Amino acid sequence: MSVSFSPAIILVEPQLGANIGSVARAMWNCALTDLRLVNPRDGWPNPCAVGPASGATPVLDHVRVYPDVPSATADLQHVFATTARPRDMVKPVRSPRQAGVELRTLEQMGRRCGILFGGERSGLKNEDVVRSEAIISIPSNPVFSSFNLAQAVLLVAYEFLLAGAEGETLPADYQVTPAPTEAVDALLDHLDRELDAAEYYREQNLRPTMQRNLHNVFRRAQLTDQEVRSLRGVIARLAEWRGRRRAAKS
Amino acid sequence: MSVSFSPAIILVEPQLGANIGSVARAMWNCALTDLRLVNPRDGWPNPCAVGPASGATPVLDHVRVYPDVPSATADLQHVFATTARPRDMVKPVRSPRQAGVELRTLEQMGRRCGILFGGERSGLKNEDVVRSEAIISIPSNPVFSSFNLAQAVLLVAYEFLLAGAEGETLPADYQVTPAPTEAVDALLDHLDRELDAAEYYREQNLRPTMQRNLHNVFRRAQLTDQEVRSLRGVIARLAEWRGRRRAAKS
Repeated sequence: MSVSFSPAIILVEPQLGANIGSVARAMWNCALTDLRLVNPRDGWPNPCAVGPASGATPVLDHVRVYPDVPSATADLQHVFATTARPRDMVKPVRSPRQAGVELRTLEQMGRRCGILFGGERSGLKNEDVVRSEAIISIPSNPVFSSFNLAQAVLLVAYEFLLAGAEGETLPADYQVTPAPTEAVDALLDHLDRELDAAEYYREQNLRPTMQRNLHNVFRRAQLTDQEVRSLRGVIARLAEWRGRRRAAKS
Repeated sequence: MSVSFSPAIILVEPQLGANIGSVARAMWNCALTDLRLVNPRDGWPNPCAVGPASGATPVLDHVRVYPDVPSATADLQHVFATTARPRDMVKPVRSPRQAGVELRTLEQMGRRCGILFGGERSGLKNEDVVRSEAIISIPSNPVFSSFNLAQAVLLVAYEFLLAGAEGETLPADYQVTPAPTEAVDALLDHLDRELDAAEYYREQNLRPTMQRNLHNVFRRAQLTDQEVRSLRGVIARLAEWRGRRRAAKS
């Protein structure tokens, strides 16, 4: 995965430095780098942003500040607006997932895109929404639909990240090889032998069902070679005392 | 959309009250309500949580506090663990999207599920991950993969929310009802006791790793109540001869 310069994340009149830092962290989590602030209430740089950014310096060190939305979006070819409230205007509406795919496609075409997010208090003004070609609307609990600023940025950035990550494979550490069937067979034979010796199956008519259910537990677990060895050790150890007793008797 | 009581969000040793409040907000944004805290550093209730929760009182007013992970998960039938770091253990790995679909399916079947999230400093301990049936791994920038606690919760809760919008069908392996976690705990306690009595762990320094790997096999297998009973019978039967021998000696 590579770092993405598009889309830009544009915070319009953000208030809290801590939220700006959290946005930077969420962006860098998703490999986005271009953070723009329109008229931040407490100015910029803001020391309150550093802690919550948690080391997202590739974003934090390159923040740009603009006096208004037109200047912040001047170089962009596509502008989206994120808003929870429905607006009385005719605009295409995208879910974050749809927008993620669209923005990824545009990025791969070399387009410069940006996404507007309103400040904590009142969100985007209608005139900012008008400037955008589409609205991104985040699905939510209808009785509690207002997201924290950094949370809203994260969801859109995450969908953009995923839209680029198709064909992603699991980390190598998880690609564990299960033991061959014959090793599991041998384990279950071992278990059955010891259970018979210990007279576990008192009622022979129930034996097939009980045995099948017991085997099923271990078949299902996708055991590795190491685990098969461990379980054989467990069985041998638990059963060993019977052998000693037999030896002592004879 | 309706409010969901499952999955529970379980924060293990969270540090900052502000983060707990942000988690509550993210949960309620996604219509989740069951927040559980394991041993929160600054106690509970914590006034620092109120502001960031931003009015998510249906979550905040019903937080429950537990001394440890076993008690926090005792009533749950499915436990997932969220972790960024790959672990040296054999566990299925889900993306948040896959987990969202799975958890939604389970919720619709009336199952009680929970998701473990580690504290801000060091995440989950291996022993907590072992207790879970699958790992949720959040895709991210490989050079900056550590999410803020509330951000990690949000992504998983958001995928759960979205999964409710689609008509998914349930995988066949969930047709069977798993035993509650406390029943599996009791089984593993039983096994450990007998292995100690049988002097299975000859080298005490290897004991924690051996035990963890052994437990992992049974956690992963999604045991039913019937299977737990069968395995306890197997252990008791295999170990019984030692008891008889002891009785015969005295």
